Amino acid sequence: MSETTVTATPNSYEVITSREFNATKDKVFEAYTNPELFVQLMGPSVLSMKIESMDTVPGGKWRYVSTDPTGAEYGFHGVYHDVIKDERIVQTFEFEGVPGHVSFNVIRFDETDGKTTVTSTAVFETIADRDGMVSTGMESGARESFERLATLLAE
Amino acid sequence: MSETTVTATPNSYEVITSREFNATKDKVFEAYTNPELFVQLMGPSVLSMKIESMDTVPGGKWRYVSTDPTGAEYGFHGVYHDVIKDERIVQTFEFEGVPGHVSFNVIRFDETDGKTTVTSTAVFETIADRDGMVSTGMESGARESFERLATLLAE
Repeated sequence: MSETTVTATPNSYEVITSREFNATKDKVFEAYTNPELFVQLMGPSVLSMKIESMDTVPGGKWRYVSTDPTGAEYGFHGVYHDVIKDERIVQTFEFEGVPGHVSFNVIRFDETDGKTTVTSTAVFETIADRDGMVSTGMESGARESFERLATLLAE
Repeated sequence: MSETTVTATPNSYEVITSREFNATKDKVFEAYTNPELFVQLMGPSVLSMKIESMDTVPGGKWRYVSTDPTGAEYGFHGVYHDVIKDERIVQTFEFEGVPGHVSFNVIRFDETDGKTTVTSTAVFETIADRDGMVSTGMESGARESFERLATLLAE
């Protein structure tokens, strides 16, 4: 079974999350760009996710809202810089609970021998922003998302 | 006279450019968001600049093309994540000569006693990308742009 690696080197601005999936890159890209599939991947399972918009073209906006078991809502939004089929997605990301702290995110899809490695690099404006995001449990959320993606691709 | 500072700390992902201007922040913000003014600021003076699009709203796209004295053209484009009047612009940036190397850029406008400090932070996906951009003469271009902005604001 493939393992998820999450790398947040001290004093860097980034978090790199990577995992290999047993699927061709068109299948994996589809899971990232089809809202009905993507909503199944996002966030830790304790939260319920709703995609409000997801316009996967350059300049398109996305927004999703997660709701915790007490009913509290958390909004996230951004814009797509690039959505290159089966290759790369580049987008901005902002948690509305801490407005003004924007990051950007490059997701690459690399296929070898029918398996696809997804590498997601989140780059923050400051190391403090990066550390703040890591402290929210970003790593376990990312592992859960990749686990669900592997399950979805196996179906 | 105010000085431009350009900071590109070794092994960081960013370049921070800053200068104080003798103008209120609404005037400075206007220069950044009105294409007729902005085109006068951009790039080193040896290049002629043309703004093809500049839709200063979240999700809006921008593209400009610079032409050198031999007629060679260089395109740049990105999208706006945020354009908050008199406060902040957050956008992505890509030089089309090296496609796939995207950075993001946060420009803040801070006014004190009628003077406005512009702080522009460009954050790159990798240190190599950052160093590559610095090696193109980004610093002198930034100084020239700020010099022209100061002249424009004095008019």
